[in-house]
Amino acid sequence: MRIAELSRQTGVPVPTIKYYLREGLLPAGEATGPNQAQYGEEHVRRLRLIRTLVTVGGVSIAAVGAVLDAIDTDRPLHDRLGVVQASVTRPSEDDTTDHSRAAARRRVDELIARRKWHSSGRGAAGQRLVSVLAAVDRLNYQVPDEMLDAYADAVERIATVDLDSIADRNHPEDLVEGMVIGTVLGDEVLMAMRRLAHQNESQRRYGRRPD
Amino acid sequence: MRIAELSRQTGVPVPTIKYYLREGLLPAGEATGPNQAQYGEEHVRRLRLIRTLVTVGGVSIAAVGAVLDAIDTDRPLHDRLGVVQASVTRPSEDDTTDHSRAAARRRVDELIARRKWHSSGRGAAGQRLVSVLAAVDRLNYQVPDEMLDAYADAVERIATVDLDSIADRNHPEDLVEGMVIGTVLGDEVLMAMRRLAHQNESQRRYGRRPD
Repeated sequence: MRIAELSRQTGVPVPTIKYYLREGLLPAGEATGPNQAQYGEEHVRRLRLIRTLVTVGGVSIAAVGAVLDAIDTDRPLHDRLGVVQASVTRPSEDDTTDHSRAAARRRVDELIARRKWHSSGRGAAGQRLVSVLAAVDRLNYQVPDEMLDAYADAVERIATVDLDSIADRNHPEDLVEGMVIGTVLGDEVLMAMRRLAHQNESQRRYGRRPD
Repeated sequence: MRIAELSRQTGVPVPTIKYYLREGLLPAGEATGPNQAQYGEEHVRRLRLIRTLVTVGGVSIAAVGAVLDAIDTDRPLHDRLGVVQASVTRPSEDDTTDHSRAAARRRVDELIARRKWHSSGRGAAGQRLVSVLAAVDRLNYQVPDEMLDAYADAVERIATVDLDSIADRNHPEDLVEGMVIGTVLGDEVLMAMRRLAHQNESQRRYGRRPD
């Protein structure tokens, strides 16, 4: 199909498609003339993925590029998840080395050891967790270990369900695409559902009683 | 204290403090001269909260204003949680009324009924969940009911722990401040921990076996 048809099928304006082509997010079409190219179903699929990550997931164009690289390379699966995570985890710009941060680092290391997780506390997610816990501590709020462990119970269960949901994908590219979607959109599902559960719990505790 | 000292104690530059004062995020200090004001501990605390929401939680200045209003009004507690949620939930700009969206709306209504949640599917969080599920569906991914229910189990447990953690706050303002911090920073804790759990589960399934 021509670029106009690609735009029609995906709802993405032609100039935006051209921008993605220039940025290398979308592979070039098959040239059929000096200023003309043909696009296929794989372009439709890739374009829909890019748009969803950007508009629904709030992922930056630079991060989308890194994520797509993780889908397309042939590095081992587990390494590719690492690249996906590093790309879509908010950076920890906090480099304050105060008491709060030192304590948070110790707690994250202890948490990983206590849960016997084969996870790196030094990767993007581990650094992020340290920064957030340090920020909470600086506001004089407590996050007791029991609370961290309740969250850990929840995410362990969720991680199993998440990886189960993509386990039957036979092609590594499909599986990594599933990891991308699961990571980015799964965050959004989880945040929205946690708010619904907060409403329910708040209504139970603080809401007006029905007569 | 003078504004310079307020800046020193919080690490927030004076021009930023003046901007927050103009925007009404920070209450005015006590005037002690034509161009001079005194600030107190409540300014330090409020300023730290604003900075954390903006820099760690990625909340916009406009949303911070709405959230702070929820802390400071004397509306019923449960209503204030609603305001907090509406302010810090990513808006659902998706107004496509296609098959995916209609199906997602039905599923969210069914989920709330099935879980017997006293939650509004029409508020910010419900709308957001509909949009995200519709987006996933448009990518031809399945989120089976078992998966939604596994997430629901997790967030129910988390919501109980979250509200327990602030239940002993005696002043409504403290309690609402706890809701704000718990909602915004709790999201970040949960996302970071979910990634650590993904790493662990991915290592178990796809990682290199130690010899």
